[in-house]
Amino acid sequence: MRSSPHWHVCLAPRKRAQCVLGAEKQASSFARPIRPKKPTEMDPLRAKATPAGNSQTESAPSQLPLKPLVVVGSINADIYVEVDRLPKPGETLAAGSGYTLPGGKGANQAACAAKLGYPTYFVGQVGEDGQAIMLRDELQQCGVRTDHLRSVSGPSGQAIVMLQPGGQNSIIIVGGANTAWPELSPGQRLTSEARSLIRGAGAVLLQREVPEEINLEAAAVAESAGVTVVLDCGGADGPVSEALLQKVSVISPNETELARLTGRPTDTPDEVNGAAGLLKRQQHLSVLVKLGEQGSLLFPAVGEPLRQPAVPAPSVVDTTGAGDTFTAAYAVATLEGRSSKDALAFAALCASLCVRSKGAMPSMPDRATVDKELKATQAVA
Amino acid sequence: MRSSPHWHVCLAPRKRAQCVLGAEKQASSFARPIRPKKPTEMDPLRAKATPAGNSQTESAPSQLPLKPLVVVGSINADIYVEVDRLPKPGETLAAGSGYTLPGGKGANQAACAAKLGYPTYFVGQVGEDGQAIMLRDELQQCGVRTDHLRSVSGPSGQAIVMLQPGGQNSIIIVGGANTAWPELSPGQRLTSEARSLIRGAGAVLLQREVPEEINLEAAAVAESAGVTVVLDCGGADGPVSEALLQKVSVISPNETELARLTGRPTDTPDEVNGAAGLLKRQQHLSVLVKLGEQGSLLFPAVGEPLRQPAVPAPSVVDTTGAGDTFTAAYAVATLEGRSSKDALAFAALCASLCVRSKGAMPSMPDRATVDKELKATQAVA
Repeated sequence: MRSSPHWHVCLAPRKRAQCVLGAEKQASSFARPIRPKKPTEMDPLRAKATPAGNSQTESAPSQLPLKPLVVVGSINADIYVEVDRLPKPGETLAAGSGYTLPGGKGANQAACAAKLGYPTYFVGQVGEDGQAIMLRDELQQCGVRTDHLRSVSGPSGQAIVMLQPGGQNSIIIVGGANTAWPELSPGQRLTSEARSLIRGAGAVLLQREVPEEINLEAAAVAESAGVTVVLDCGGADGPVSEALLQKVSVISPNETELARLTGRPTDTPDEVNGAAGLLKRQQHLSVLVKLGEQGSLLFPAVGEPLRQPAVPAPSVVDTTGAGDTFTAAYAVATLEGRSSKDALAFAALCASLCVRSKGAMPSMPDRATVDKELKATQAVA
Repeated sequence: MRSSPHWHVCLAPRKRAQCVLGAEKQASSFARPIRPKKPTEMDPLRAKATPAGNSQTESAPSQLPLKPLVVVGSINADIYVEVDRLPKPGETLAAGSGYTLPGGKGANQAACAAKLGYPTYFVGQVGEDGQAIMLRDELQQCGVRTDHLRSVSGPSGQAIVMLQPGGQNSIIIVGGANTAWPELSPGQRLTSEARSLIRGAGAVLLQREVPEEINLEAAAVAESAGVTVVLDCGGADGPVSEALLQKVSVISPNETELARLTGRPTDTPDEVNGAAGLLKRQQHLSVLVKLGEQGSLLFPAVGEPLRQPAVPAPSVVDTTGAGDTFTAAYAVATLEGRSSKDALAFAALCASLCVRSKGAMPSMPDRATVDKELKATQAVA
């Protein structure tokens, strides 16, 4: 990885659209004001309302507290069982071993942001079971604020991961509380407290493991308050609704999801470029493509594409959560005022640190680890 | 079901061996003394030591508190997921629904006994996870005393039950804490508190979902104190060690387990009779065979066999836990002083009540329900 000796300030106005989360670096401290997204700067093709009461700009005093990242999404108990083979109908098999880890793309991304030291709220639902207690506890241990993690009757979301020899996984997903949101009229599915939280956020981060209606409502509340919406495309195979796409400022697919979103092949770098460029032009948003070992690619709503190579890991132990880490770290870095280029590099380093040990949340780096690694890289550079 | 208008007192000495758990009915109250098994009465072919300090007999004062039932065994989180089909290697499927229930043959039997109002302790292990919190809580809610439910590092025992259309189940068992007992020298695997508890028990109830060494140690401690040992054969396919069989007073297999124990077929009533009689003669113990819809069969160590028809249920909703209910209810009834005949009838009614609703522990009847049903039956009779 080519290191950045220091985090650069966000690029000057002509390239400002790269600051996709709307934050400009005002000072070297992390405790700097977050400038809400100014849609006309970010994306001249899609003007978004900026409420008068939320008109903080880059000239705002630098001592204002950070506006939190609000992650709305799924939280799962991931139950791993190691089996020699899958059971047949009617058969009982003993697992070699088994363990349960907290997961869900929403919870993973919230955990990553909080471990990176950024004030992060999670809006989601757990069931009323033993898993729920573990899940809430794990999020809190990562530093996530769980005031808006609601308990609903029934089971928590779960993923049963049957690990087979040779690395094959078969997975059974139990939606549980992640899909059991109240069937209220639009605009009422999130609590008024959650809607208020979103209105005051620095950015809202969504994925696709909760019902589209929940994402739509969160995005609508955010849009009405001029709050940037980032959508990670992971978690569902179906198309993303046009209504949701219109409220999103940054969309982050991997190459498979990009192919699905655009109906275009993404097998070669040229095809990925073509599809990402198409998506950006069609939807007037920034496209952040995660390419795994091939790194990442940002097509900002305005400006030239940026490519970020993956940061090599001494050994890749487990890639679970690496994509979630990348998206969340990118959001944190831009909320902290980094340029798109530096945010990409920061996210790539965090994802590289994540794949070096087992699990999702447990392997996500804390801020001290990232800072130490950055310093080491700078010393070498 | 043919009703017993009243619970009969235990049969006179010539048939005393049918009181397999060693309790004689002293009065109509449940709060009656438990007479420890007198092996020479129960089983003239196998004399067992009765410590001087534990020489309570049927002439003991009737106001002594009940000696508890101690269940040593497994406790599981049973994770049910309803799927259209099993996933293939590498495939991710969504479950139609999913729910987690407390289970494990040990915990089920303890829960049943406690719900029947009998003082019951559970000796077992849970992991350090969310499931453990749920499991401990559920046992306590059933009235089980969990002072000897130990927490060990790692996962709790789990059974992942993949329910398929047409009633086929595929199950993956995670041994977890149920198999992670300390690797200490024999005689030291159970805590000194648990050993002391067993010595003061009315009976010890074992199954086969914990390591054989644990069962052996519990049975040895019980035998040394003249405490009756009941072994439910469910939970493992392998042979029961001769060392364990020698310490058991009542063994309770279903027909499959009986076939495995004896190497004899059990496909017809005559074959079941033959195998049970053989087992009784070979091992000098009482054999309590569970035959599902065909009811049950007791070959007492001394005396004539007793047959108990199943009690018809208005509708059979879920048979999970019915066998555990039968064994535990039989143990409770005999500890309370019922004759073998009445204990069999009591157990059959409890099992019938269990199959009328879903789940294991939740569907086990409480004492009030059993008493009400008994009264109704008596009124009809």
